[in-house]
Amino acid sequence: MKKGLFITFEGGDGSGKTTQVKLLKEYIAGKGIEVVTVREPGGVPVSEKIREIILDSKNTEMDNITEMLLYAASRAQLVSQVIIPALDSGKCVICDRFVDSSYVYQGIARGMGMDMVKAINDIATRKLVPDITFFMDVEPMTALKRRLGISEPDRLEREDISFHDKVYRGYVMIADMYPERIKRINGLLPPEEVFLQIKRHVDDLICRYKD
Amino acid sequence: MKKGLFITFEGGDGSGKTTQVKLLKEYIAGKGIEVVTVREPGGVPVSEKIREIILDSKNTEMDNITEMLLYAASRAQLVSQVIIPALDSGKCVICDRFVDSSYVYQGIARGMGMDMVKAINDIATRKLVPDITFFMDVEPMTALKRRLGISEPDRLEREDISFHDKVYRGYVMIADMYPERIKRINGLLPPEEVFLQIKRHVDDLICRYKD
Repeated sequence: MKKGLFITFEGGDGSGKTTQVKLLKEYIAGKGIEVVTVREPGGVPVSEKIREIILDSKNTEMDNITEMLLYAASRAQLVSQVIIPALDSGKCVICDRFVDSSYVYQGIARGMGMDMVKAINDIATRKLVPDITFFMDVEPMTALKRRLGISEPDRLEREDISFHDKVYRGYVMIADMYPERIKRINGLLPPEEVFLQIKRHVDDLICRYKD
Repeated sequence: MKKGLFITFEGGDGSGKTTQVKLLKEYIAGKGIEVVTVREPGGVPVSEKIREIILDSKNTEMDNITEMLLYAASRAQLVSQVIIPALDSGKCVICDRFVDSSYVYQGIARGMGMDMVKAINDIATRKLVPDITFFMDVEPMTALKRRLGISEPDRLEREDISFHDKVYRGYVMIADMYPERIKRINGLLPPEEVFLQIKRHVDDLICRYKD
């Protein structure tokens, strides 16, 4: 019996998710609604330890199925320990990445197929689905330029640009598949204008939610 | 196209698996067959790091589904990096614990059900099934007494004896379900007599295998 709002952000690295999560958190909190923000993979101690294994650039021999199961394990812990209890107590949960990342990165870009990702993630999430998902639409080359020089690339960031192109096309595909839930946000505008698009959807959702 | 023999050992902690793995390895190697032995969870660097998370006694808040996915992730890496390549090149692989441990510990003893364990592990193992599995049959209280004072108990070892009883009954159940594959070995006898039971089955298997 989910009572709170569950909002997720998706998109490639450098698409501006972190900034928008922060702005949205402040906005919703300003309405007197308690907000919990989490990031994937990670968010709680067990999941952060799993995150370290996933992102460790020394783990070059990591099998694709192992990686998918580790993301799912990290997610299962976050769902059971944080997301479900928060939603149950009426809080709003904003998550930086969720199952759609696995569909796009593992299922589509790594070619493992949507069925395998779904079988594992239905178990990991207890079939919890976000109320709304924002796909931050920034083309891979633009996103890469934004990120350049910001930090030392980790294992996933080293993947070449053709991989990021597949990820981008994957996001476009699932946004087309679930237009009611996944909102495509033009991420090229200045952050405050990007936020106006998100705010409009969230206002709608809160209105409908109160009815 | 599996070419090598795949042998697994199952049973509670303190049932004598480690000793028998060692004896069997020497025996098969003595026949001129190359043998690889591995342990679960662990066996390769990525899996050993996952093992650390699973067994860390500080992770008391670990969700059951997270734990199941971590075991599967560790197994997926071991299967892809070690077990399948070894079998493909005609080597014999002896594994200390495999999927049956997940059926018994997660599926039965923790009550998560066999279907969930099967869905995840079919993906993790690519449906690889051992040629033969030895269930080291030692009742939980006897096994506990064997282990007492040997080492500092880890998180799983702290589970109470009623859990180990469920594990034991789970092993008896799956041994009854798959009598062709799972051989129930009386583990109460001296190690060399326990090994005689195992040797007989392995000799049969190698004979049939050569035909």
